[in-house]
Amino acid sequence: MALQTEALVEVMRGGRVESEHRGAIAVVDANGVLIAHSGDVGLISYLRSSAKPFQLLPLVESGAADRLGFTDVELAVIAGSHSGEPRHVAAVQSILHKIGLGEDALQCGIHVPFNADAAKALQAAGREPTALHNNCSGKHAGMLAQAVDRGLSTQDYLDPQHPVQVAIRQRLAELGGITFKEIGVGVDGCSAPCFALPLQAAALAFARLAEAGRTPTGALRGTQDAGSKIREAGLARVARVMREYPEMVAGAGRLDTDLMRAAPGRVVSKGGAEGYHGMGIVMDDGPALGIAIKIGDGDGRRGAHPVVIETLRQMGVLDAAALRALKNYHTWKITNHRGIEVGEVRTNFKLTRPIGRLRTDA
Amino acid sequence: MALQTEALVEVMRGGRVESEHRGAIAVVDANGVLIAHSGDVGLISYLRSSAKPFQLLPLVESGAADRLGFTDVELAVIAGSHSGEPRHVAAVQSILHKIGLGEDALQCGIHVPFNADAAKALQAAGREPTALHNNCSGKHAGMLAQAVDRGLSTQDYLDPQHPVQVAIRQRLAELGGITFKEIGVGVDGCSAPCFALPLQAAALAFARLAEAGRTPTGALRGTQDAGSKIREAGLARVARVMREYPEMVAGAGRLDTDLMRAAPGRVVSKGGAEGYHGMGIVMDDGPALGIAIKIGDGDGRRGAHPVVIETLRQMGVLDAAALRALKNYHTWKITNHRGIEVGEVRTNFKLTRPIGRLRTDA
Repeated sequence: MALQTEALVEVMRGGRVESEHRGAIAVVDANGVLIAHSGDVGLISYLRSSAKPFQLLPLVESGAADRLGFTDVELAVIAGSHSGEPRHVAAVQSILHKIGLGEDALQCGIHVPFNADAAKALQAAGREPTALHNNCSGKHAGMLAQAVDRGLSTQDYLDPQHPVQVAIRQRLAELGGITFKEIGVGVDGCSAPCFALPLQAAALAFARLAEAGRTPTGALRGTQDAGSKIREAGLARVARVMREYPEMVAGAGRLDTDLMRAAPGRVVSKGGAEGYHGMGIVMDDGPALGIAIKIGDGDGRRGAHPVVIETLRQMGVLDAAALRALKNYHTWKITNHRGIEVGEVRTNFKLTRPIGRLRTDA
Repeated sequence: MALQTEALVEVMRGGRVESEHRGAIAVVDANGVLIAHSGDVGLISYLRSSAKPFQLLPLVESGAADRLGFTDVELAVIAGSHSGEPRHVAAVQSILHKIGLGEDALQCGIHVPFNADAAKALQAAGREPTALHNNCSGKHAGMLAQAVDRGLSTQDYLDPQHPVQVAIRQRLAELGGITFKEIGVGVDGCSAPCFALPLQAAALAFARLAEAGRTPTGALRGTQDAGSKIREAGLARVARVMREYPEMVAGAGRLDTDLMRAAPGRVVSKGGAEGYHGMGIVMDDGPALGIAIKIGDGDGRRGAHPVVIETLRQMGVLDAAALRALKNYHTWKITNHRGIEVGEVRTNFKLTRPIGRLRTDA
């Protein structure tokens, strides 16, 4: 059965659409109201690495992050898909050191650093990449830290039944407003469980992440029991460390990092594999927004990047300076092997139901 | 406006469709009858490198190929998107030598050889890739040969108004059963004009290519004037050199090469950029078939490869041995950084109107 998607990006050549990327977009506010969308907001998709802020959450909520003495930089890399730059590797090493484990405890597997300079430096030094260079090594170190803090096994921390994974899935369910069992479970590229939620539920979780980050008593007001306060404080801290250290969440020249820098304090952004993207947006005059985007064909660059920027533009989130800073993620000319301009990548959608209180000059 | 496509390939993870590739398929016989399809057969798409058999055609038809003493291996590389292997580079050098031009006459631009061993060998030798390594260098050498043979300028051979390009476009129009003006023109990655035709028209051109290749008086019987005989002989030769030297049409470990080897004498196959694929199929008991496939999102590997094999399977073209030889192009397991199986790529379509005389056990 086909995914219910809409054409979002068109790849032009000679004045003609040569290819297109389709997808679905949900924009939800922190009260759970669907504000704008394209395609099927009920589309159930794996968040992949877009779940990382929520995979970090139990570590912060439980107090383990403080008991173990983690810095904000270290928390940010746990929520990140890092590029394997020296600062990323050092942060993950520090986390492991603080929990008394070696890099052999990481079960994320190995790949060459995303960052080309880091990859070249390794090669020049005659060294092979290790699990530390895996973009998910921070997340894995954070999961190990949760296990260590709770006195649980660190051998099977990737088992979906392991209490660390159950705690993550519970939080995704609660924040997304769905049941534990409604969350689909697969295995991610890094071998950790990955979680599938309806797009609208994922957007709500991101809205709550951003809302909690705005004021000490934001997102979950009205339910201020002790548990809610802990939840809110945890979300606020996760959002804060990501916004304050965007270079730890991705890396040089990557969308999440550049986007959080271009809209400082306003956007929490976390991309995932296969064209997934989650964002939480602090609004000046209303509840925070959460945005979840899935590109149907899984293209995370040509598919997702223009859609991320265009969605924010249509929602009035980015000012002119931010749009200029991010323009190469939004639309670009296609040049060929001789540098001749032969086409263009550009968006081709309009979100339905943009709300009045946002700029709608899109 | 969205392309009219159907879901063709599903990318599974944890028992769920994580991503999908959509596209359109036209299967047409050499008489122009639409035999089977999926999506919009009127979809106008650039053939990109799938046009190469037809870009070679005027060189053969005009007698230039013989006057210039080109071998069948050389003609095959002109119709190919080669991998920059030593045999490919040598063939292109030989063509240029025979027409008295140097590699500086090639206006295709430069990229690293597709073939990893060839790329490594260049690097190990401290050499930079040249235009000869560009996958389109054979095509460009062939265009230059047409210009030299006709005493035309070799400086502007890529101009869409150059007689060499006009001759190619005329043949595409005639073989596709449409007018010259109906063919859209863009600029390809190699700077040559690229041509956009309705999928059904492109499939007809491939059917005629395969039909002519079958018998000396096949495709165009009934119109055996002198021009038709030349056309048919030219098509037959193009089809023959591609089938006889499939390693020149692509390279080691690539679909076109492996497919033509797995179905020897039966299939002429030529992929193009952005998920395009054209094929001509010799049938035992009826007119040849032409197949044109366009993956909407432009994914030429995960999108196009499974669709190519599954289309041939549903049309009864591939026997069990061929399907086994090509199984890694048809469906495959997705493994992660630790080699754990996490999902699968597989097709999810059934062509409409499969005809009775073909095996329909699909």
